[in-house]
Amino acid sequence: MAKELTPRHIDYAKWYNDLIIKADLAENSGVRGCMVIKPYGYAIWEKIQQELDRRFKETGHQNAYFPLFIPKSYLSKEADHVEGFAKECAVVTHYRLKNAPDGKGVIVDDEARLEEELIVRPTSETIIWDTYRNWIQSYRDLPLLINQWANVVRWEMRTRLFLRTAEFLWQEGHTAHATRDEAIAEAELMLNVYADFAERFMAIPVIKGVKSPNERFAGAEETYCIEAMMQDGKALQAGTSHFLGQNFARAFDVKFATKEGKEEYVWATSWGVSTRLIGALIMTHSDDNGLVLPPTLAPIQVVIVPIYRGREDFEKVNEVAVNIFENLKKAGIAVKYDDRDTHKPGWKFNEYELKGVPIRIAIGPKDIENNQVEIARRDTLEKVVVSQIGLTDYIRKLLEDIQETIYEKARAFRDSMVSSADTWEEFTRLLDEKGGFISAHWDGTSETEERIKELTKATIRCIPFDQKPEEGKCILTGKNSKGRVLFARAY
Amino acid sequence: MAKELTPRHIDYAKWYNDLIIKADLAENSGVRGCMVIKPYGYAIWEKIQQELDRRFKETGHQNAYFPLFIPKSYLSKEADHVEGFAKECAVVTHYRLKNAPDGKGVIVDDEARLEEELIVRPTSETIIWDTYRNWIQSYRDLPLLINQWANVVRWEMRTRLFLRTAEFLWQEGHTAHATRDEAIAEAELMLNVYADFAERFMAIPVIKGVKSPNERFAGAEETYCIEAMMQDGKALQAGTSHFLGQNFARAFDVKFATKEGKEEYVWATSWGVSTRLIGALIMTHSDDNGLVLPPTLAPIQVVIVPIYRGREDFEKVNEVAVNIFENLKKAGIAVKYDDRDTHKPGWKFNEYELKGVPIRIAIGPKDIENNQVEIARRDTLEKVVVSQIGLTDYIRKLLEDIQETIYEKARAFRDSMVSSADTWEEFTRLLDEKGGFISAHWDGTSETEERIKELTKATIRCIPFDQKPEEGKCILTGKNSKGRVLFARAY
Ligand SMILES: [Zn+2]
Ligand SMILES: [Zn+2]
Repeated sequence: MAKELTPRHIDYAKWYNDLIIKADLAENSGVRGCMVIKPYGYAIWEKIQQELDRRFKETGHQNAYFPLFIPKSYLSKEADHVEGFAKECAVVTHYRLKNAPDGKGVIVDDEARLEEELIVRPTSETIIWDTYRNWIQSYRDLPLLINQWANVVRWEMRTRLFLRTAEFLWQEGHTAHATRDEAIAEAELMLNVYADFAERFMAIPVIKGVKSPNERFAGAEETYCIEAMMQDGKALQAGTSHFLGQNFARAFDVKFATKEGKEEYVWATSWGVSTRLIGALIMTHSDDNGLVLPPTLAPIQVVIVPIYRGREDFEKVNEVAVNIFENLKKAGIAVKYDDRDTHKPGWKFNEYELKGVPIRIAIGPKDIENNQVEIARRDTLEKVVVSQIGLTDYIRKLLEDIQETIYEKARAFRDSMVSSADTWEEFTRLLDEKGGFISAHWDGTSETEERIKELTKATIRCIPFDQKPEEGKCILTGKNSKGRVLFARAY
Repeated sequence: MAKELTPRHIDYAKWYNDLIIKADLAENSGVRGCMVIKPYGYAIWEKIQQELDRRFKETGHQNAYFPLFIPKSYLSKEADHVEGFAKECAVVTHYRLKNAPDGKGVIVDDEARLEEELIVRPTSETIIWDTYRNWIQSYRDLPLLINQWANVVRWEMRTRLFLRTAEFLWQEGHTAHATRDEAIAEAELMLNVYADFAERFMAIPVIKGVKSPNERFAGAEETYCIEAMMQDGKALQAGTSHFLGQNFARAFDVKFATKEGKEEYVWATSWGVSTRLIGALIMTHSDDNGLVLPPTLAPIQVVIVPIYRGREDFEKVNEVAVNIFENLKKAGIAVKYDDRDTHKPGWKFNEYELKGVPIRIAIGPKDIENNQVEIARRDTLEKVVVSQIGLTDYIRKLLEDIQETIYEKARAFRDSMVSSADTWEEFTRLLDEKGGFISAHWDGTSETEERIKELTKATIRCIPFDQKPEEGKCILTGKNSKGRVLFARAY
C-alpha cells in the first residue's frame, strides 16, 4: 500500500493528495469544492481543537455561537472588509423549494425570494459586531473575550484538500477592548498562543511577524501571522491575529462609556486558525511512506502487532501482547492492539506507517522466549529490540523523544531554507533553485510588492518580529530600505 | 433582577423567554430566525456535547465531517425525504456578489449563478449516503458507525429560542449495517443512550417509545423517540433515533458483498439531539426565580460570596473564603469566588439564583467567629449553616443530592401528568384542564390521528415501549384498539 504513494521528488502535489486519500484523512465530496473529513482526519482535528480550546480558556476566553448567515448589507458596512470578502461567497436567495411541474424532483419556489439576500459567513466580524453593539455599554463590559468554533465558506475555484476548500472548519476569536494598547496586546498574545501551540503541540516551527499592508486582513490595521515552511520550499500561513482598530466599532456603531464618562468607539481584534493546519502538519513531517504524526496529535500513539504462525504461537504471543496493551492504556497512552487475523503483519506494518502511528511494537515467539519486543519508530524508521521489563517507561520516554526529534528535524530544515539575497538575480535564482524564505530588502511600497509578485509569484510572508534595522537597497527598485523582510512562494 | 421575570403562572411563554434573556443564555440575532448562543448558554451546550461525545465513543462511534451544502437533486432521490425536508430550506443560488452600479453596497452577480442550486443541510442523510457508496464494498466495511457535530438549517416561520430556530446546533449519527436486525439494534441502542443521558445527566425523565407512522422521520421505517414533560403540561420530543431500512441505500445505490458473495443493499440508522435540549432543560427544572441547573450541567457548581462591611472585615472573610475556594477547586468542583466590590451581596444572590448555580456559600464575620458558613441550595432555596470542617465533603455530597432531588422532583411531576382517558369528553377535558400525557385508545389509522390533531392540537407522542396489550375502543371513532398510546400537546 505505502508503495503506491507518489514519491515527493516526483510530484509533491500528487504525493500530498495521495497521502490524504490513502491515510484516510479526507476526500472530495459530491459538492464542488467541499471536502469530507474522514474519521481518522477528524480525530486529528479534534486533538487540535481540544488543545487550542484549553489554551483559549486558560487565557480568559469563552466560547459562543453566532449565526451562519450574514445579511448582505452587513458586509457593506466596513469598506475594506466588503472588498475582501463579499466577492466569492455563497449567496442564499430563496427559502423554499416546490415540486417541479413535470413531477421530476424539486425546483426553487420563486415566490419564496428573500427580501435581502443572506451570505454564508466567510468570517464573522460583521454579524458579531452587530451583536456586540447591544452587549457593550460601559467600560465595565470590557474586555469581551469570545471565541467561536464554526464552519465558514469562501467560494474557491481551485481547491486542495485541507489547504483551500470552499467550506472549512476553524475557530475565530473576536475581542473588544477599551484601549488601543489593550487590543494590540491581545492580538499579540493570541499570536503567541498560536506560535507556541504550532511549535510545541504540532511540532511545526514558525516565524512570527506582521503582514505588509497588501497582505493584511480586509478591515485590519495590523495583521500578525505565523509562517511555516513546507518540505517543497513553499511557505504556509498557519495562523493570523488581527488588530482591527476601531473599524468595526465605527461600522456597527459600538461605543462605550469610559470611566471618565466619555463616549468612545471600542477597539477590536480577531484571530483564527483552521483545518488548513492539517495540511501544514502533513507537509512539515510526512515522508514517502506516508504520514508522520507527532505523538501529541496521533489518534493512535502506539500499535501492537502480534507475529505468529499457528494457534499455539498466537496464544503465547497474545498473552504478553494483551498485558503490554493494558499497561500502556493504564499509563494514559493511546494504544491499539491489532490482533486481526484477516491481515498479515507486513500489511499492518505498511498500514500504520501510512497512518503515521509514532511507535509500532511487534511481538513474536522468539520475543516471548527472550522477554523482549521489537520497537519501530515511525519518524526515523529505526528498529530496536528492548526488554519487556520497564517497557511502559521506555515507551513514554520514546514518545517524548519522537515529539522533540520531529520538531528539531523540521526546525533544522526550516533554518536551512532561510536565505539572504542582495541582488535581483540572486533573489530569482534562489527562488527557482532552492525556494524557501528569502530575506531581502524592499522599498516599503505596495507597487513594488505587487510587481515582485507578478514577476516571481513570491509574496512578502512577513516582516519578522526579530527584524534587525539594516540600511539597504530594494531588491527590485534599488530604493532605500531600512530592513529585510521575508519573501517566499506560498500555499 | 430575578423579580423582573414574568411568573410562570402568568405567562409561561414569556417566563421562558425572559429567563433565557436575563440568565444570558441566548438572544435573537439580526438574522431572522437565527439565535446567538451567549457564553453562559454555550457553556451548558459544551457540557452536553462532551458527555454525549464520550458516550458515543464508548459505544464504538467515530466523528467525521460532511459538507454543509447538499445539491438539490440529492434531496429528490428519496421520495419521502424530499417531501419532509425540501420544502422550507435555505437555497444557495449564486456564488458571487459585485459592486452595485449606483456605488451603494453590493448586489448579487447574475453571471455567477450555480448550475445546480445547493441546499443548506436540514439533515445529512443524502450527502452522507452519497459518500458511503464509496466507503462500503464488502461486509468487512460494516458496520460503519459515524457521528457528526454540525449546524443545520430549517426555515421556520415562527421561532422560539432553543426550541425552534432556523439554524440550530446538533449531532447526527449515521450508521450502516449488514443486516436489518443489527440496524434495529443500533437504533434502539442509541435511543437508550439518549434516554440514559437525559435522565442521569440532564435530570430529565423521559418516556421511550416509537412514533406513529404519521410522526415518523421522512424516510424512516421506524422512529424511536424520548418524550419529556414540561412544567406547563406540554410534551417535548427530546431525541429521536431512526431505523431507515434500506431506503437511503436504494436511493444512493449503496450495496455490499455479503460473506456468501451476494450483493445486498445496506441497512441504515440515523439519530440526533440538538440545542433544543437546552429548552427542555429550562422547562423541566427552572422556577420563577430563574434557572435551576443539575450540577452535572452547571458551568458554575458553587459560588462563594463574601459578606463584609469594612476593610478589616473583608480581610478576615477573604482569607477563609480563598481557602474554601482552593479546597473545592482541588476537589474538581467548578467553583467561583465572587469577591467583586462593585456589587452588593444581595445583588449577587439574585444573579446566581437567576443563573441556576446549584450551591451558594455565604461567609460573613460571624461565620468566621463560629467556624461556619451559610449554604443555600438553588433547587429547594433552603439555607443551612454548616461547619467549615469537612466542608468539601459536605459540598460534594450536596451536589449529588441536588442532582437526585432535581430528577426525583421532575419525575414525580411527570408521573402526575400521565392520565388515562376512556371517552372523548374525558380526553378533551383533561387536555384543556390539566394537560400532560393522556393514555388513550386509538384505532391505529392516520386519518383518526390527524382528525384528533385538528380538533385538539394533541398528537400521538409515542407508542410507549412498556405499552400493555389491552382491548379497547378508539377515543374518537370507537373502533377497536389493541393498546393505549400517549397523546399530548407538544412543543
Ligand atoms: Zn508572516
Ligand atoms: Zn415518543
